[in-house]
Amino acid sequence: MDMQVSFLDRLFESGLLIETGVDGLYGRSGQFEDVIAAFERLIDRIGGADGAEAIRFPPGMNRAYFEKSGYMKSFPQLAGTVHSFCGNDHDHLSLLQCMEEGKDWTKEQKATDIALTPAACYPLYPTVAKRGPISQNGGLYDLQSYCFRHEPSKDPARQQLFRMREYVCMGTEAHVTTFRQTWMDRGVEMMRSIGLDVEIDVANDPFFGRAGRLLANNQRDQNLKFELLIPVTSQANKTACMSFNYHQDAFGQKWGLTLENGSVAHTACVGFGLERIALALFAKHGLDVAIWPEAVRKTLWG
Amino acid sequence: MDMQVSFLDRLFESGLLIETGVDGLYGRSGQFEDVIAAFERLIDRIGGADGAEAIRFPPGMNRAYFEKSGYMKSFPQLAGTVHSFCGNDHDHLSLLQCMEEGKDWTKEQKATDIALTPAACYPLYPTVAKRGPISQNGGLYDLQSYCFRHEPSKDPARQQLFRMREYVCMGTEAHVTTFRQTWMDRGVEMMRSIGLDVEIDVANDPFFGRAGRLLANNQRDQNLKFELLIPVTSQANKTACMSFNYHQDAFGQKWGLTLENGSVAHTACVGFGLERIALALFAKHGLDVAIWPEAVRKTLWG
Repeated sequence: MDMQVSFLDRLFESGLLIETGVDGLYGRSGQFEDVIAAFERLIDRIGGADGAEAIRFPPGMNRAYFEKSGYMKSFPQLAGTVHSFCGNDHDHLSLLQCMEEGKDWTKEQKATDIALTPAACYPLYPTVAKRGPISQNGGLYDLQSYCFRHEPSKDPARQQLFRMREYVCMGTEAHVTTFRQTWMDRGVEMMRSIGLDVEIDVANDPFFGRAGRLLANNQRDQNLKFELLIPVTSQANKTACMSFNYHQDAFGQKWGLTLENGSVAHTACVGFGLERIALALFAKHGLDVAIWPEAVRKTLWG
Repeated sequence: MDMQVSFLDRLFESGLLIETGVDGLYGRSGQFEDVIAAFERLIDRIGGADGAEAIRFPPGMNRAYFEKSGYMKSFPQLAGTVHSFCGNDHDHLSLLQCMEEGKDWTKEQKATDIALTPAACYPLYPTVAKRGPISQNGGLYDLQSYCFRHEPSKDPARQQLFRMREYVCMGTEAHVTTFRQTWMDRGVEMMRSIGLDVEIDVANDPFFGRAGRLLANNQRDQNLKFELLIPVTSQANKTACMSFNYHQDAFGQKWGLTLENGSVAHTACVGFGLERIALALFAKHGLDVAIWPEAVRKTLWG
């Protein structure tokens, strides 16, 4: 924890991250953004030839789809719903008086049709399902969006609003598990090419409550999710900078994703935590990009 | 309205925008994003030499700053607050049962410390204030973020989550009003260079309720805000694609922004509605970028 706070303070002092008064909610400097943009271009170079369809969803999604996703079963504590004022002139006067008196005015806010996106791929599944059957050769999608997780923290690698880049693959079991393995190999290679020490391990997601322990055990036992770990604030507690998920046919069943031959599609996704990767680079090579190792600079900026 | 729906349908059919089941909440195709990226590079070329400090805030901001901003006085109906589940294991079971039964589960959600950003510059003022006095030569900032406005609509140019690029200037009255005039001239020039018909008019913001009419009159009478209007779905009802705001010393007073000589800073901001500008281009030149006029393509993609 101490190392996390000290790294966060150094990021604030250098101006790379900008305090907003809320833990896990930060502004980014132009330099920080430049590192993320460079890393995204590296992703494009590695994955570009695969011919994924690029889609960019905004940071919020249809709440009905969010509900159907089952996220509230596993991670209710992390989810964010968007609420608005829906009253009349009279209600507005009460609201302003409530705010004036420093009381809690937010209880009167009503849920809108929008929930914040918890992972970049969540809006994709219902979108693809509406298009009809997926080619027998599989479908491949390239996504990126800001995501929300309600977990205030002094660990700069645990932000409440952060960007996730993802590739999602839909097809036969063999197709999507090969996709996942390909990206596990590529991920290790990419991180080494920018001077980062990596290891791959089974994931350890923070499923909520007692029932959550069963879900976590199941995820581990079936090797459904792997993470690529890099030391950011601690050698002992490494940070998951990529994840590799195989959903079997669970999303195919849920969303009605089928292949041309009528079988239910299997799906897998590979995610890059863009802020975490940038922070791993700053932690390893220093806060001044100008003095990063020449090989790393060359890989990122050519 | 009919033209708005028909344009929206054509955007869906072409795949440039992607339905999510919520009005005003859409996915974007890679081609749509490419137009926005090209227009942002045009902004960089026009504004780059001014030496603005680039800062990128996430799509949410500190709710305490949001409250202090006064946004709930003027546009309560447009604002979005982020709410989360904060209960225990028992509450979680109730929540899941409530969802199972199709009842409203969102009433139990509690407001977090985060509100969605209503305009890209909102998080900037408290950030700059904390740094201490602004140089007598003024401060200039380059911002971009997704912004939220709760106004579901079939008009593709009125989205609930959209991107705003902004320059914000802080300094003396003469400095910031010159900045604003410079960008009004540049804005007209830029839009003409990509083949768009523009006019500038005083703004007509949707201030809420009876008290709002006074605020709207004040804004108009004092010429505090101008808009650059372009026909998107209608020649009669043009769409505001840029805005040019002079806040006098209102934000300087509110946030404690001072110049080195101790006087209160005046502020002005210039905003680009990036989705609206992209849509104006598609409306004018057609949905197939490959057949846009050569001069427009050259300005955007070199």
